[in-house]
Amino acid sequence: MRKFVLLFQCQDRKGIVAKISDFILKIGGNIIAADQYSTDPQGGHFFIRVEFILDGGREKRQVLLEAFKPVAQEFNASWNLYDQAETLRMGILVSEPDHCLVDLLYLWNAGELNAQIPFVLSNCEKHRKLVAGYNLPFYYVPADKHNRRESEILAYCLEATDFLVLARYMLVLSADFLHKYNKDIINIHHGFLPSFKGVDPYGQALKKGVKVIGSTAHFVDAQLDEGPIIAQEVEYVSHKDTRQDLIRKGRHAEKKALAHAISSYVDYRIIKHENKTIVF
Amino acid sequence: MRKFVLLFQCQDRKGIVAKISDFILKIGGNIIAADQYSTDPQGGHFFIRVEFILDGGREKRQVLLEAFKPVAQEFNASWNLYDQAETLRMGILVSEPDHCLVDLLYLWNAGELNAQIPFVLSNCEKHRKLVAGYNLPFYYVPADKHNRRESEILAYCLEATDFLVLARYMLVLSADFLHKYNKDIINIHHGFLPSFKGVDPYGQALKKGVKVIGSTAHFVDAQLDEGPIIAQEVEYVSHKDTRQDLIRKGRHAEKKALAHAISSYVDYRIIKHENKTIVF
Amino acid sequence: MRKFVLLFQCQDRKGIVAKISDFILKIGGNIIAADQYSTDPQGGHFFIRVEFILDGGREKRQVLLEAFKPVAQEFNASWNLYDQAETLRMGILVSEPDHCLVDLLYLWNAGELNAQIPFVLSNCEKHRKLVAGYNLPFYYVPADKHNRRESEILAYCLEATDFLVLARYMLVLSADFLHKYNKDIINIHHGFLPSFKGVDPYGQALKKGVKVIGSTAHFVDAQLDEGPIIAQEVEYVSHKDTRQDLIRKGRHAEKKALAHAISSYVDYRIIKHENKTIVF
Amino acid sequence: MRKFVLLFQCQDRKGIVAKISDFILKIGGNIIAADQYSTDPQGGHFFIRVEFILDGGREKRQVLLEAFKPVAQEFNASWNLYDQAETLRMGILVSEPDHCLVDLLYLWNAGELNAQIPFVLSNCEKHRKLVAGYNLPFYYVPADKHNRRESEILAYCLEATDFLVLARYMLVLSADFLHKYNKDIINIHHGFLPSFKGVDPYGQALKKGVKVIGSTAHFVDAQLDEGPIIAQEVEYVSHKDTRQDLIRKGRHAEKKALAHAISSYVDYRIIKHENKTIVF
Repeated sequence: MRKFVLLFQCQDRKGIVAKISDFILKIGGNIIAADQYSTDPQGGHFFIRVEFILDGGREKRQVLLEAFKPVAQEFNASWNLYDQAETLRMGILVSEPDHCLVDLLYLWNAGELNAQIPFVLSNCEKHRKLVAGYNLPFYYVPADKHNRRESEILAYCLEATDFLVLARYMLVLSADFLHKYNKDIINIHHGFLPSFKGVDPYGQALKKGVKVIGSTAHFVDAQLDEGPIIAQEVEYVSHKDTRQDLIRKGRHAEKKALAHAISSYVDYRIIKHENKTIVF
Repeated sequence: MRKFVLLFQCQDRKGIVAKISDFILKIGGNIIAADQYSTDPQGGHFFIRVEFILDGGREKRQVLLEAFKPVAQEFNASWNLYDQAETLRMGILVSEPDHCLVDLLYLWNAGELNAQIPFVLSNCEKHRKLVAGYNLPFYYVPADKHNRRESEILAYCLEATDFLVLARYMLVLSADFLHKYNKDIINIHHGFLPSFKGVDPYGQALKKGVKVIGSTAHFVDAQLDEGPIIAQEVEYVSHKDTRQDLIRKGRHAEKKALAHAISSYVDYRIIKHENKTIVF
Repeated sequence: MRKFVLLFQCQDRKGIVAKISDFILKIGGNIIAADQYSTDPQGGHFFIRVEFILDGGREKRQVLLEAFKPVAQEFNASWNLYDQAETLRMGILVSEPDHCLVDLLYLWNAGELNAQIPFVLSNCEKHRKLVAGYNLPFYYVPADKHNRRESEILAYCLEATDFLVLARYMLVLSADFLHKYNKDIINIHHGFLPSFKGVDPYGQALKKGVKVIGSTAHFVDAQLDEGPIIAQEVEYVSHKDTRQDLIRKGRHAEKKALAHAISSYVDYRIIKHENKTIVF
Repeated sequence: MRKFVLLFQCQDRKGIVAKISDFILKIGGNIIAADQYSTDPQGGHFFIRVEFILDGGREKRQVLLEAFKPVAQEFNASWNLYDQAETLRMGILVSEPDHCLVDLLYLWNAGELNAQIPFVLSNCEKHRKLVAGYNLPFYYVPADKHNRRESEILAYCLEATDFLVLARYMLVLSADFLHKYNKDIINIHHGFLPSFKGVDPYGQALKKGVKVIGSTAHFVDAQLDEGPIIAQEVEYVSHKDTRQDLIRKGRHAEKKALAHAISSYVDYRIIKHENKTIVF
């Protein structure tokens, strides 16, 4: 018994759900979860996520991909179909702050992130011991503003990962890197986007005197802190909080937003659409 | 163009979604939202809510009810199908505290509660003016612990309402009343059930020294504060808060939980199952 | 027995609390609450709020103001001393959206806002009935973008109010108005400042695809949506929420932030400092 | 320059703050934070926490303790005075679930818990490696329901710790142990007390169909899950959440409540009073 997920989008019209559910019935599957969304039921764009169980072995996904093609073509859909047992390979890039890394490794080890971690890569050697404690490869790449060592990093990531997580990686990845890697990258920004882009968001928040701080997990695109937002979390603050207090309180929000985003991603719950995300 | 909602439950098995969506396609409908839940995909209990649009007039619902019967019978399902334009009639019972009443009337007037309000009934005459301001009937029934005047209340409610809301009605309705009314009743309890049942929950919370207070919207059944929970909301408190502060802070939680529960109910999002609710 | 509040700020140094509490002891008062803050205990700026009870009649405040002067001079302090029985006069300006107005009038009537309301002024006549229901004066001033009628509004406000609340007043008050009124004005902005300034913040939020929306209560200054922030509240949203949903959800956050800000203000809990607020 | 904290309680009356602040001025201190609370300014019980800075070495605390005695006697107060550089020794007891342990060790290592950790003691050997990674002693004591090995545990704790944290320690400590240890013990209960005492609170919550789960950090006393509550945190849940989901979501609330409670404790922010806590 395997669990599959279909992510599917097309122009909205009648009969999509009927066709998809009929397909799943005919192959002997049982739908165990379904969620759909339309920007407008009359002429809008339609999105659906369907989770179903089905007998089968490792080869089953290929069979299904072939079988589903005609259905998808009928609706001129953009789609994919995933076997939840084939977990995504998540490469982690991290700089000095380690709270997100600690949290991700904990969750992964507890079986709560449906992903593989081929490696942790950092420009900060101090995480070696922590990563070794989980028997995971650790790559130390001493990148900094003057030498971002992107080709070196790319070499580690390109084949070995399905997506990357920037778990507080403090160097901006170049458009060239994004182009060459050409897969999804999820970043945690320690500010409440679209406020407080760029460096030192907590310092910016302090200066502005806000009463709530936030963090934002988002897909990376070529514009700094501008990709589609996946998850946001907040913490209340007061005049008493120093910059150090904001950093400390913000960690909760960062960990929660990033874990939520990654968890949604590896469970195939996210569809990107224009500059936004549908998170089922 | 009308919007219909199907609420449907049966033993889980393959093909339910396919059958339902095929039915909707054949009658010319377009599914605009769907949510499902199963206690266990293998042999559990299955629940689904489907929202679809369809051309048609007032008589359409009767046609659909007939047409859907064979589908439902095939799965031995418990179900109903609603026309969202046929709004439910919500009778409001309230005692002295008026914050929930004020909130409900505001939301209703703003078009945010998809319901009719045939009347507000109270054992406290002071609400007359407020209710008159919305051009709604107000029934003053001076019920108290010694004379609950239930037959009088029942006379107002029985034919004129589809369900009742106890928006801080401080008298317990008897099992006999519940039996005779025999429709849903939603209560807001100003405590975080299952803690703090019965009288003066804020006083109980204060005595216990809790750091979070809550409120609970739930269906009424014959046991006091024991029916299926629909929605809960919380507020953080501290040692500084007096009983009066808890009452004041608690109002937020009460209003939010009750509005959420009623809104879910009138949009046909709630299915009761055993002593719990599925809230889609 | 009257309750007084001292708000006091000066450069931080040793002995301030001792001097103030000694003063209160000597006049026969009992401190019932105190809160202090320093930007830096060594050479920073010091703020304190002290609440104390004391026997006395209406004239007592004048006596205390005189008596405290030498203490304040010793520290070269900026300060004021309030008799909590002398409630502030709060003028309310409001345009079409009425949720904040409804909430404020409810809270005021329930005795939860320690303020007087000399009038509600609106460029939208529909609120007349609601305001009349509370036996408060209602001034209809049909201001719009083309004719802001600020001198007319000023005439109502200047003598009769101690501060103004813009409870969703949709016209920007000019620098000239602010200069002439020259007292505090509290605004509720339906966006999470510093994001989403200006018009249609919910539309902006929707376009950006944020997962949390917010509202901000702040003092008004000459720059649009830029004055010191007093309170912020948030609500979680998803891809499913339409602009109308954001407006609806946002109302909770607006009401909560504005009520919190006003309540802090009338209880003399706020000190402005540079472009920020200390909210005790 | 050292930072001291005074915790002080007595019957409320005039002049307490004046006396204390005068004392601090005379010894050359500068008050940097103060918080007070009274159950009733007229004849109630008064509590105050004062934080001040002062020049001095390690011996200073003894000097201050002597010097303050006459002040305290004047008010017949219960009090203590702490040097924040003399950090408390926190013994950690933990069973199989490790999320609180991981969080506490992370926070401690990041310098965010003002405490020493003389050891981690567990009846589950698997934590040895994690604890060793922080260079802390790990004591494996295979206690279980049939043999609680309390004298063995007590031998580790009695001299070496100032207080204990039960970071999900699943065996109830006997009244005899509590009596012999005779210092504070902080427990995290994975339920929203006073609801869901005892075993499997998430299972209880699931059965009851609640829509919010919570966790409670509290002092341990002889009655199970009944000691004074220090901090509570909540998470929203739905019908979709399985027992496993509640456990997963609950971890957030448990970590947050426990970290908050311990952090308040080691910063001398908590006063126990009757069966409640004042948490400044």
